[in-house]
Amino acid sequence: MNIEMIRAAAARLGGHARRTPLLSSPFLDEIAGRPVLVKPECLQHTGSFKYRGARSALSALDAATRARGVIAFSSGNHAQGVALAAREFGVPAVIVMPSDAPAIKLDNTRALGAEVVLYDRAGEDRDAIGAKLAEARGLTLVKPFDEPQVIAGQGTVGLELTAQLAEAGVRAGDVLVPCGGGGLTSGVALALAAEAPGLRVRPVEPEGFDDVARSLEAGAIRRNARLTGSLCDAIITPQPGDITFPIMAAHCGPGLTVSEEDSLRAMAEAWKRLKIVIEPGGAVALAAALTAGAALEGDAVVAIVSGGNADPALFAEVLTRFG
Amino acid sequence: MNIEMIRAAAARLGGHARRTPLLSSPFLDEIAGRPVLVKPECLQHTGSFKYRGARSALSALDAATRARGVIAFSSGNHAQGVALAAREFGVPAVIVMPSDAPAIKLDNTRALGAEVVLYDRAGEDRDAIGAKLAEARGLTLVKPFDEPQVIAGQGTVGLELTAQLAEAGVRAGDVLVPCGGGGLTSGVALALAAEAPGLRVRPVEPEGFDDVARSLEAGAIRRNARLTGSLCDAIITPQPGDITFPIMAAHCGPGLTVSEEDSLRAMAEAWKRLKIVIEPGGAVALAAALTAGAALEGDAVVAIVSGGNADPALFAEVLTRFG
Repeated sequence: MNIEMIRAAAARLGGHARRTPLLSSPFLDEIAGRPVLVKPECLQHTGSFKYRGARSALSALDAATRARGVIAFSSGNHAQGVALAAREFGVPAVIVMPSDAPAIKLDNTRALGAEVVLYDRAGEDRDAIGAKLAEARGLTLVKPFDEPQVIAGQGTVGLELTAQLAEAGVRAGDVLVPCGGGGLTSGVALALAAEAPGLRVRPVEPEGFDDVARSLEAGAIRRNARLTGSLCDAIITPQPGDITFPIMAAHCGPGLTVSEEDSLRAMAEAWKRLKIVIEPGGAVALAAALTAGAALEGDAVVAIVSGGNADPALFAEVLTRFG
Repeated sequence: MNIEMIRAAAARLGGHARRTPLLSSPFLDEIAGRPVLVKPECLQHTGSFKYRGARSALSALDAATRARGVIAFSSGNHAQGVALAAREFGVPAVIVMPSDAPAIKLDNTRALGAEVVLYDRAGEDRDAIGAKLAEARGLTLVKPFDEPQVIAGQGTVGLELTAQLAEAGVRAGDVLVPCGGGGLTSGVALALAAEAPGLRVRPVEPEGFDDVARSLEAGAIRRNARLTGSLCDAIITPQPGDITFPIMAAHCGPGLTVSEEDSLRAMAEAWKRLKIVIEPGGAVALAAALTAGAALEGDAVVAIVSGGNADPALFAEVLTRFG
């Protein structure tokens, strides 16, 4: 993994990935006690940064391999990113999902042209099902984060950010990134290390699911004690990746954690002040920007919003409670 | 009014107004039966395009006049635009508002540094109060739409749009614009007439408040029968402006109207598919893009979203009903 791979991914994504703007509001600055700059990847195609990594991975395949199709395991944002990228290339996409995934996620993935294969979480082996399908049809597996071309695609967020922050006159400070397996975090960290070394990535996780923060502190990979029970489901993974962790260890500052309550409040503030829609997991970095003042460095703070695929009933509840 | 004034306004707004992106979703394309491209001015500073006109007007004043301050009559988006622009220039802003305006609007305007002067709708003459204040303090009135430098500022949306649409390969078709007094509509129409004559502006209004559509049809200014009772309050005005109407008559296609129900549905679709927050009045053009297929011309349709300052309780209800 290196910056040249990210630059090459940016060239391949040109005209496809959306260059998301940099947003701000004096009201958020006041809450945070410093200027807050927000990079809203919820405005990316399919509503999350995952499209970038998926498009990067598919565009890096040779044409004959790509034509046979791709396969991914995901019930969420990665599934939609892979489905859309495959549709754009006119190649088959198979998405393996648990049979208890929400209907809306199945529908959205199918509507983007993917074939959804369901498995029973309790009784079936997801990996075995996927491997059998991949072999039978010659499909290429697109991993959600621990895959160099996926990381390179997510890193294009960092390249855009360095250009936008330079324009805004921000050259130093913390860049807060919602962190699951570390694809986005490591990609952005690599991009900033090469292009804006005064900016430092800080991974942000929900309380109780802070495998990356603990791994960074320990200098070795640590696991989450549990994987369910968080509204921030989009960024809950067992542990950081074998490829993403060393990159994060080399380039990131200490991890931050936020409460679920603070994430929901950040969703409401973003709705009110920035007019964007964020899902709970996508709001953790903004939540940290608004609440973790003393733990942050720099005159300004940057928060990446990773996705906006929120449940309407939950969102209505957030507006009723905090709007 | 001419295109040079819009180009000059764009130069003055450079580095201040946000260049809003162009958004789309395959799900919206499917509803509309053609590609739908959305220009989300809800992402503009203060949550609406009004900041552009306000900043344009203030930046066009000579420094001594501007230093004495500005005054505006508004309980909504124009007030916030003027307040922020005045704060940026470090000059006083007085906003005259009815005493029964929602507390949140008073608070937001004051939080942006403006002095709010309240008047009693029933017993006091707003214009007399404003004139007296303006004379006593040497304040300059910034009108909400029927003012050349305000129209020039709103027209910068059209300049951005022509560049973005050329990049997207769209050179012909209807550009739908939420229309109140016609500041945004006439500014965008002038910009497109000069730079992209294949694109045609269509003003969009709520049913029952279609003064512009009727005025265009009659070839003379017509009034609305009533001014209250619409959720689309941000775009309800008595009649088109003396300056804006002739521009619209010269450059716009026939007006379109949409039901309140269709606007609320469009808000929910934009929440779900574009991850943006729209207020009811700001959603009328998107509503028309999604529902008025047969009345539209062109392979693609463009919808401008004018603002996102929605009430949280109403928004929660929209998500519960249509999300």
